Amino acid sequence: MTEEREGHLLLPGERIDDLQRAHLRIIQHPAGFCFGMDAVLLSDFARIKPGSRVVDLGTGTGILPILLSAKTRETSFVAVEIMPEAADRARRSVALNGLEGRIDVLTMDLKQAPVKLGKSRFHAVVCNPPYQRAGCGQTAKDAHQAAARHEVHCTLQEVVASSAQLLMNMGRAFFILNSDRFLELLFLMRTHGLEPKRVRMVHPFADRPPNLMLVEGVRGGKPFVHWMPPLILYGQDGKETQELRRIYNEEEL
Amino acid sequence: MTEEREGHLLLPGERIDDLQRAHLRIIQHPAGFCFGMDAVLLSDFARIKPGSRVVDLGTGTGILPILLSAKTRETSFVAVEIMPEAADRARRSVALNGLEGRIDVLTMDLKQAPVKLGKSRFHAVVCNPPYQRAGCGQTAKDAHQAAARHEVHCTLQEVVASSAQLLMNMGRAFFILNSDRFLELLFLMRTHGLEPKRVRMVHPFADRPPNLMLVEGVRGGKPFVHWMPPLILYGQDGKETQELRRIYNEEEL
Repeated sequence: MTEEREGHLLLPGERIDDLQRAHLRIIQHPAGFCFGMDAVLLSDFARIKPGSRVVDLGTGTGILPILLSAKTRETSFVAVEIMPEAADRARRSVALNGLEGRIDVLTMDLKQAPVKLGKSRFHAVVCNPPYQRAGCGQTAKDAHQAAARHEVHCTLQEVVASSAQLLMNMGRAFFILNSDRFLELLFLMRTHGLEPKRVRMVHPFADRPPNLMLVEGVRGGKPFVHWMPPLILYGQDGKETQELRRIYNEEEL
Repeated sequence: MTEEREGHLLLPGERIDDLQRAHLRIIQHPAGFCFGMDAVLLSDFARIKPGSRVVDLGTGTGILPILLSAKTRETSFVAVEIMPEAADRARRSVALNGLEGRIDVLTMDLKQAPVKLGKSRFHAVVCNPPYQRAGCGQTAKDAHQAAARHEVHCTLQEVVASSAQLLMNMGRAFFILNSDRFLELLFLMRTHGLEPKRVRMVHPFADRPPNLMLVEGVRGGKPFVHWMPPLILYGQDGKETQELRRIYNEEEL
């Protein structure tokens, strides 16, 4: 895409960030919610088969389908976002990368997704849900930041319920969440028939407690959790670990 | 205790092992079930307040109350064991250490413990329950080994149910279990009103998945899990980590 055409994709205050992977780029607004490391970690954790139909619940910037499109061949994505401005920006990021044929951004409440998109139709769901319960922690002043970090528009229960309904039998859901909500997420998953099958805890340092967890659930799966090695982000020298560097630099498969 | 008197405490084939801590020793039979590292890890993980009344469900050799007696002042223990031979041996280990006034070994089915010992009477329960589901994995040929490793005499559900009934409100249960039964244990705990409050995963090596987990539950506690740093057992050189050495060499507090 020429620079001139790219200019048409930007609104005032927005910028284009290079994702350092497969020539992908993303439009962000510094005053709005910018994607974080959690989305990158989730895109690494998710195992999506070629040809899958995938839903991203609460796509925000569109980072997850954009990264995942480069990871697996012939996948198609429905990216659901309730905030019209964010959805519009994600749609322009999709266009910026020429991915209109593979990623569909819909302005939609994720609670409505199973009814509007159809139940049991998808091979995979990814979601980087709001981390904190509504009313917990510092509330972001910006509405976009608040929506991404808090349960303003939906609860964790609603995220899990929608995911389970969207998935076909044996379909897979991939979540990343604060580790202090670990038990809550696992209970909700089991309650909604989304059996937790694979867990990876994310530790800032090797000798510190985990602060995030990655969980894969299988719709209708049998109870058995496979534990992965811990994901350590930083060495004692404060530098990124080899694995974190691998995750950030992963090239197209 | 003189060597002569100690001799009277031993049956043919038994030996006395030094626990390398607070001059404690234990009687074991090499052909029976010998205590393992898991019991030592659990004794380190358990936080028991001075003056507590504690139950050990399925005490085996009696290792847990013997170690815990040295860790906390003025505690008293009821150690429950269904196998008469093992209970007898544990009782002799208690005598060997002069702990008859603090540790009571009862030959009893742990499912009967709440009825026989009284409900809601204890400050803490510890249990190193059978690791594998009945019929799973290699079945130990020796009946004692089988009882300790498999669900021959009780299920995990029965362990959790008895623990919850024995504990007073805000009483604490401490378990160690294979990490592949993590979810099962946490579900059972919550179902029985024993809220999981503290978790520590045990990894053989820093870059390997956890194989054991330590869990503390509080009777009637509010949902919130505190994650501890991972417990790593061996360094890349194959030697015990500093923390494992600390756990094995811990002196009386």
